[in-house]
Amino acid sequence: MDRRKFLKTSALGGAAAATTGALAAPAYAQGNRTLTLVTTWGRGLAGVHDAAERVATTITEMSGGSLTIDLKAAGELVGAFEVFDAVTAGQADMYHGADYYFVGQHPGYAFFTAVPFGMTAQELVNWYYFDGGMELHDELGQIFGLKSFLAGNTGAQAGGWFANEISGPEDFNGLKFRMPGLGGKALGKLGASVQNLPGSEVYQALASGAIDGTEWIGPWADEKAGFQEITKTYYAAGFHEPGAGLSLATNREVFDSLSPEHQRIIEIASGECHQWNLAQFLSNNGSALQRLQSSGVKVMEFPDSVWDAFGAASREVLDENMGDDLFKKIHDSAMASMKSSSGWLKQSSTAYVAQRDRVLG
Amino acid sequence: MDRRKFLKTSALGGAAAATTGALAAPAYAQGNRTLTLVTTWGRGLAGVHDAAERVATTITEMSGGSLTIDLKAAGELVGAFEVFDAVTAGQADMYHGADYYFVGQHPGYAFFTAVPFGMTAQELVNWYYFDGGMELHDELGQIFGLKSFLAGNTGAQAGGWFANEISGPEDFNGLKFRMPGLGGKALGKLGASVQNLPGSEVYQALASGAIDGTEWIGPWADEKAGFQEITKTYYAAGFHEPGAGLSLATNREVFDSLSPEHQRIIEIASGECHQWNLAQFLSNNGSALQRLQSSGVKVMEFPDSVWDAFGAASREVLDENMGDDLFKKIHDSAMASMKSSSGWLKQSSTAYVAQRDRVLG
Repeated sequence: MDRRKFLKTSALGGAAAATTGALAAPAYAQGNRTLTLVTTWGRGLAGVHDAAERVATTITEMSGGSLTIDLKAAGELVGAFEVFDAVTAGQADMYHGADYYFVGQHPGYAFFTAVPFGMTAQELVNWYYFDGGMELHDELGQIFGLKSFLAGNTGAQAGGWFANEISGPEDFNGLKFRMPGLGGKALGKLGASVQNLPGSEVYQALASGAIDGTEWIGPWADEKAGFQEITKTYYAAGFHEPGAGLSLATNREVFDSLSPEHQRIIEIASGECHQWNLAQFLSNNGSALQRLQSSGVKVMEFPDSVWDAFGAASREVLDENMGDDLFKKIHDSAMASMKSSSGWLKQSSTAYVAQRDRVLG
Repeated sequence: MDRRKFLKTSALGGAAAATTGALAAPAYAQGNRTLTLVTTWGRGLAGVHDAAERVATTITEMSGGSLTIDLKAAGELVGAFEVFDAVTAGQADMYHGADYYFVGQHPGYAFFTAVPFGMTAQELVNWYYFDGGMELHDELGQIFGLKSFLAGNTGAQAGGWFANEISGPEDFNGLKFRMPGLGGKALGKLGASVQNLPGSEVYQALASGAIDGTEWIGPWADEKAGFQEITKTYYAAGFHEPGAGLSLATNREVFDSLSPEHQRIIEIASGECHQWNLAQFLSNNGSALQRLQSSGVKVMEFPDSVWDAFGAASREVLDENMGDDLFKKIHDSAMASMKSSSGWLKQSSTAYVAQRDRVLG
């Protein structure tokens, strides 16, 4: 679909719907409703598909079945990356996915998953609820006829698996590395040959030497993928997705046709799912990291010179999008919130944990 | 109320209720229900009363009014510290409060708010959802006829306000300091004269010199209390409440009489409120800290020797309760989860933020 044409069409559609809403009393569909939820996840994919299933189940249960969510995993109704267009076009009612898959529709969507050198999961939630993030998600949604809520989070994604240790930014020059999104673009600026392989192909590519390294999600999902069988060099902290949010987006006309209680159920189920899913990843990552280390994986941190290069490249990639007014508005709002809320976190929670670790040993 | 007598009575009552439930089909009350919610918070108290109001409103809204929550702030039906007994006795249907106020009923309740040198808010949630915390909250609730869920969090509480800077643990000897709970008991072991003043009396006590210092909550609430008018010496990180959870507890017979959808609505509304409230505190603390610093407050960190003393005293206080089997069971479960989930957090999110701060300056 041509993006400009799409924007124009849906803006008109949105205006027409808004006018109708202002003039007529809302006509809630009576009786039980079933909404079709498509996702960007293969059925059963640890963590991410779990989040889609959790939010679908809690909506259905809280409504006593008066709002039933029928979950179709990737490929069951539409392909993973087709869910956005399917929902804006009304082919499906909702999608669950990582909004940065849709930077082609609008680059501002990156902020509702993660941007390189951006917010942690906690900072994302602070921004979303209290510093304007939810309203900006809504502003994006108005363009495309969507009503979105954060509904999952993987936590900070790992730096990834490397055939050889990284001693400086020059080691990325010519490195064949799998990393999608803006993070991948930043690595490209360091000279890496960035690949965007689907999950199913990554193991084989790393095993055969077709790629020199890959990031995936974190210890829990990475262990399931089996990368520790190929290399033992694992970088824990990454720069590319410091707290990757997942979203539940409903076709706006469908959302507007729901009763106020069903609308509220979708919103609160999404928010709770964000917290539940983040805890799921963090709890499982904790135990998986211990297992990986016991099995001989060397858990490393990139040297400062590499972080400096990551920082400069990330800035460059973000700056390339600043010509778009809404991107800039979202960027500035997110960065201001991050700066404000990170100050207290650093001096309270982070300082406390450092002392606790030191004292308890 | 005598605690042992209470325990015996409610254990019998619980067994009788369980038998009834096993034999008879559940008889959901038909039509609309209104439940009375009492709280440990004065009406309008920033953050904590907000959480009670949020969870009451979302339950009412998600149920379309079929389950209406009638919120009575502290003193409106019963006093702040009477809410636990009021709900177990059926005088009110639910309470919202900090469960460590009820360590007199059972010391294990401390873990569902915070214990000194214990879990951060994120670690608490990891434990609660995925490492057995929720089940242990339930096990405590079975004793008292309560069904509880986490439903708020203040984040890490500040070390507090001091008339004079602290240069070593010996400075606590004879210091008149306001700190409730197990943290206060730990300070007592350092020789402090620990006071447990209600919020309304703290400002005057600090201003008059009746106390030499106080902890309260964090920059947002502390600024509202006005302590910066009295002293400029503020310690950001504290050891006593590294992530203070708030709970919503429903009388178990009332909970069991609700429909499955109303039960699920209470559970999910509570979980979402935990995330929302933590974000509220963290977002507001970020901006309040900036204002406090601009107005001349000196934000400090305790020296290592003080943290060492805090750690030893906290261990001593926890050990004093280990004779209670359920306390020990909860303690061991919480500490195992904290150890596991904190390992990954330290090497991923914390390491990332440290590098981000260094690079962005």
